[in-house]
Amino acid sequence: MTVSPETSYRLRYGSEAPFDLPARWTEVLANQLAHRSVRSYRSDPVSDETLTALVAAAQSAPTSGNLQLWSVVAVRDEGRRTRLAQLAGDQQFIVQAPLLLVWLADLARARHVTEEIGLATAEGADFVESALLGFVDVALAAQNASLAAESLGLGTVFVGAIRNRPLEVAAELDLPPNVFPVFGLVVGHPNRLDETTVKPRLPQQAVLHHEHYELEPQAVHVDTYEELLNSYYSAAGLPQSWVQRVATRFGSIAGLNGREHLREALRIRGFQLR
Amino acid sequence: MTVSPETSYRLRYGSEAPFDLPARWTEVLANQLAHRSVRSYRSDPVSDETLTALVAAAQSAPTSGNLQLWSVVAVRDEGRRTRLAQLAGDQQFIVQAPLLLVWLADLARARHVTEEIGLATAEGADFVESALLGFVDVALAAQNASLAAESLGLGTVFVGAIRNRPLEVAAELDLPPNVFPVFGLVVGHPNRLDETTVKPRLPQQAVLHHEHYELEPQAVHVDTYEELLNSYYSAAGLPQSWVQRVATRFGSIAGLNGREHLREALRIRGFQLR
Repeated sequence: MTVSPETSYRLRYGSEAPFDLPARWTEVLANQLAHRSVRSYRSDPVSDETLTALVAAAQSAPTSGNLQLWSVVAVRDEGRRTRLAQLAGDQQFIVQAPLLLVWLADLARARHVTEEIGLATAEGADFVESALLGFVDVALAAQNASLAAESLGLGTVFVGAIRNRPLEVAAELDLPPNVFPVFGLVVGHPNRLDETTVKPRLPQQAVLHHEHYELEPQAVHVDTYEELLNSYYSAAGLPQSWVQRVATRFGSIAGLNGREHLREALRIRGFQLR
Repeated sequence: MTVSPETSYRLRYGSEAPFDLPARWTEVLANQLAHRSVRSYRSDPVSDETLTALVAAAQSAPTSGNLQLWSVVAVRDEGRRTRLAQLAGDQQFIVQAPLLLVWLADLARARHVTEEIGLATAEGADFVESALLGFVDVALAAQNASLAAESLGLGTVFVGAIRNRPLEVAAELDLPPNVFPVFGLVVGHPNRLDETTVKPRLPQQAVLHHEHYELEPQAVHVDTYEELLNSYYSAAGLPQSWVQRVATRFGSIAGLNGREHLREALRIRGFQLR
């Protein structure tokens, strides 16, 4: 039941799909290309054994210097999921699905190890570099967990809105200093009526550069994409224009939905960003 | 040839492996659990079709709000790889392998779209939140590319040392303002003599929390891990102690290898981190 490279490329890129097909095709590639975010779930639980497998996949991702600067809180309790949904833009799929994973950049464990066991002050943890290590580590881990879940027939969706009110999320999860909620990942059984399809991405030429970066040639690919995505939005009954969405997000502070306070929230949580 | 869950868990966690095996096991999970960083390569090239597949996998990863705030530069030129290796801690596998992917947090495209096409000033891009979106987006994408490469029998290793001298890397790749090199990913055919094995991670109980976070119980798992990893280091002929490695990295500014200047480098490159 592996989807062919032809079909996978066509769904992901529409008429802009690359025509140079790879000599080999794997289950991994087929699963990756078929990704779609699921926003409608049945309430059936996700088992402990499955959760163990997802976290094993996450821990198997690369981590800078084997530092493992992340943790994850598995939230199943309905009351807590309801409260977290309210803090994260009132998105109902957080309540609907049985499992919310909150992914954390975690410098607390490394600080503890350095200061209590390694007998040094963890001055290095105060720098932007160390926060970045946590953000990258936790993203690599969560992407493995998400793909693992999809390979098991589960649906997932990332929840960046967990950063709208990060201090209240931290309080809800008893996070100690130096631990910060970066995003959520909803995991559950997709509702059979969910009609989400694979969303096309920018033509590959817009993001893949050879030997050096070129900004100017991207404009034509953005134009192509605007048209391609408008067809997708029409079919899904959604308002048009990718360009307008990007401009709404970056064109004013209001587009940040409270996340303009992220730097201050990080500071309060112990991330000095020196 | 899929490795069983029992073997996969045992290699990843040693004697601490979870004994609750999942009801289903997939090629994706088997590939993820088998990850190891490869640091010795043959010089055989990676084909254009393979590169296309890796970037298609990367673009298929989730991206916040479909903003797609990343780009990647494929570097094959030997002179450029040699120069980049010198900038990134003189790591010889960067020269040895035929392909280096430099992954970029890219706010330039979104700024361009917002300002030239959307007709607004991209003020939102100045905030920590927007940089974080780029860091997370590019990590999700790169993890898909890395796993895709491994599924095709290729080896990979992430290169965080690309951030040791990011301004020189940016100059080498002609990066415009608002584009920042976050990490490299070496891709190539593993040297048959490479003896790297799966590296054990922290016991799952140290990173997986239920309903709320707990710091204190982690200490015993760190102790267990220290022993487990010392056996691994011994077998690999490497110096011992995970705790010492963490303490060396965070215990002084010297442990940052120049990355204590990352905030200033980001500012120079247009990331204001407001």
